[in-house]
Amino acid sequence: MKATNLTINGQRLWDSLMELAKIGATEKGGVCRLTLTELDKKARDLFASWCKAAGATITVDRLGNVFARRAGRDPKRAPVMTGSHIDTQPTGGKFDGAYGVMAGLEVLRTLHETGIETEAPIEIAVWTNEEGSRFAPAMMGSGVFAGIFKEEEIKAKTDREGVTLDAALKKIGYAGPEPVGGRKVGAFFECHIEQGPILEADGKTIGVVTGGQAQRWYEVNLTGSESHAGTTPMERRRDALVGAARIIDKVNRMGVARMPLARATCGVIESHPQSRNTVPGRVFLTVEFRHPDEAELKKMDEEFRAEAARFAGELKLGLDIQQIWHFPATPFHADCIAAVRDAAQARGYAHRDIISGAGHDALYMARVAPTAMIFVPCADGISHNEIEAANADDLAAGCQVLLDAMIRRANAPA
Amino acid sequence: MKATNLTINGQRLWDSLMELAKIGATEKGGVCRLTLTELDKKARDLFASWCKAAGATITVDRLGNVFARRAGRDPKRAPVMTGSHIDTQPTGGKFDGAYGVMAGLEVLRTLHETGIETEAPIEIAVWTNEEGSRFAPAMMGSGVFAGIFKEEEIKAKTDREGVTLDAALKKIGYAGPEPVGGRKVGAFFECHIEQGPILEADGKTIGVVTGGQAQRWYEVNLTGSESHAGTTPMERRRDALVGAARIIDKVNRMGVARMPLARATCGVIESHPQSRNTVPGRVFLTVEFRHPDEAELKKMDEEFRAEAARFAGELKLGLDIQQIWHFPATPFHADCIAAVRDAAQARGYAHRDIISGAGHDALYMARVAPTAMIFVPCADGISHNEIEAANADDLAAGCQVLLDAMIRRANAPA
Repeated sequence: MKATNLTINGQRLWDSLMELAKIGATEKGGVCRLTLTELDKKARDLFASWCKAAGATITVDRLGNVFARRAGRDPKRAPVMTGSHIDTQPTGGKFDGAYGVMAGLEVLRTLHETGIETEAPIEIAVWTNEEGSRFAPAMMGSGVFAGIFKEEEIKAKTDREGVTLDAALKKIGYAGPEPVGGRKVGAFFECHIEQGPILEADGKTIGVVTGGQAQRWYEVNLTGSESHAGTTPMERRRDALVGAARIIDKVNRMGVARMPLARATCGVIESHPQSRNTVPGRVFLTVEFRHPDEAELKKMDEEFRAEAARFAGELKLGLDIQQIWHFPATPFHADCIAAVRDAAQARGYAHRDIISGAGHDALYMARVAPTAMIFVPCADGISHNEIEAANADDLAAGCQVLLDAMIRRANAPA
Repeated sequence: MKATNLTINGQRLWDSLMELAKIGATEKGGVCRLTLTELDKKARDLFASWCKAAGATITVDRLGNVFARRAGRDPKRAPVMTGSHIDTQPTGGKFDGAYGVMAGLEVLRTLHETGIETEAPIEIAVWTNEEGSRFAPAMMGSGVFAGIFKEEEIKAKTDREGVTLDAALKKIGYAGPEPVGGRKVGAFFECHIEQGPILEADGKTIGVVTGGQAQRWYEVNLTGSESHAGTTPMERRRDALVGAARIIDKVNRMGVARMPLARATCGVIESHPQSRNTVPGRVFLTVEFRHPDEAELKKMDEEFRAEAARFAGELKLGLDIQQIWHFPATPFHADCIAAVRDAAQARGYAHRDIISGAGHDALYMARVAPTAMIFVPCADGISHNEIEAANADDLAAGCQVLLDAMIRRANAPA
């Protein structure tokens, strides 16, 4: 049997997802399985037992990242890796993260039951604390693996009860012996639900993810003057909320002008003194822009600053803009993207290129390994919600593409 | 000596204001004298003792409104009344309210020391709870006097400790025997600091107040859809905050288009869920319009509703607008306005017509008696603040205009 004709078992994939979702299942059909809790341990243990039964070897690194390895014909070759996370948001769904891990498991099982030997080893990673709900920041395990964060700093992070990540790791027995990162990964693929509405709206089964957006996040403070709404003439006002309104409107129009790729959002607004008959004197506002093209994002930054300054000038407001975060654009690896696109094409799945709008472990892995992602649709684009839903056939298709792409990379000339 | 040549004593007025301001004086130079507290009693007692010393008779009505009456030649004529309030905001100033009462006292003292007899009686009113800080609503005493509120309902109002207004009146001994209102008032004048910036900016000493603005207050709820700021394309968003921003900007522009008379303000905004990377799904917003012309205010109402509906339609948002309050326009009495204007003119004070943007007891008194107000500048238009400040010469000028206007009304043919 040719490796490229291997077919994954969509029912087995679905059953594994449903079995995993029982651990931390919520009444509304979602999952609450916060990182490094007893429920997370139970899920990790189940994953490890399934992988061992499919002939894989389990290792755990010092940050609790779990790797299930299936040997390749050439042990000197770097592994072709896939994976995601099995921690969830407090009111999370059954598919975010879990799908990427279970898809990897299904690839492993398919190889195991057919006895196919790949040139490079195959690995499935379960990254610690992707969600960032219990311990901040998010994407910790992959972030340390990729050298973004320092291991000791991350281990010292505490949850709201003051428990350190290190203590939580030890408590559930997942503070492993392996160093974190520092070894070669031949390629990294991650299956994930889109967490957005594009594939569903476009009638596509597979999203060929070509990279992650660059992001700039800002905090804006506008300072005017509080005054009586009845006695202060319009021409003498310094209304900070009007300034904020013009910025919010402009930010939105800047995004609309760059459709479909740009994102432009004001998520938080705090106005003072919040009195019905007082002209607002101070406003705090958050702004964020995303664009896959770093140069275009820079243009947005410049336009935003210039327009905000213009509004502030017109309204006689003080203006302070702080860029608090810059996440660079993450273009994925051309050959990995091609492996995904070609597999979708060969299998006859409706597909399209897409940019990842959300954060994923793959965005950090892309710093240290050739990487790509495979998206499948989720109902109404909803995620981080107990009603998160995905279609079994779509999930199977994504997993099939994953298998094909991994085998292509694993069997490619070294 | 002709009554019209009488001159008030500006130093005595100032000294009285400073003496009164000692009762409840704050460290920052302001006054905290909440209505119907022991401090309020002390201030009322001081006022009554001063008036008695100037030959007046004190009566107190069942709502604690205090009237100091100086007899006229013709006891059948309705009194020409002035007054204001001596309760303050928790962090109030020395002049808001107190000026109107002390100006009345100075008129009384001037008449008393010169032995002038007016045709109609002169009365100085101290209205209970103008501020509305301890008991809501504001302008209670004048409101019941003018038949706006019912006495029994107002007496049952409670402060945050659950003390009824009636109990508070009795505790300080100011639940008087007189019925509230129901008697004829020949005219009502009220001196007040402007509480706005217009006179100061315009270099005018006297504001000839021609009336109070009509007001419409609204609550607006916008409903969109919360979604991920990274994965939701601009064209698929239902961003409630963008809708609110367009309304805030439009409200402001509607006011600017009707300068200098109109006021248009959004004072409170609450956006949900207040997450930096989530498109806001719900916004609550307060809007208020003020204009001295009821017909123009109606046009603003119509334009506001039409534009808000247009924005909501464009952004696919749910929109609910509730008008929660309508305060009708209060044009003052032509002859009382003329008496103020003529006095300012005759005395050579720089003056201009002005509309009252804030609430005052005079706005309720205008419902039952010929009424006008006299404004004097306050520093930077600041009021309801411990740094509230006014110039002694301006205060004296306003008091002089009050004396002249009251004498003109009191001596006019019956």
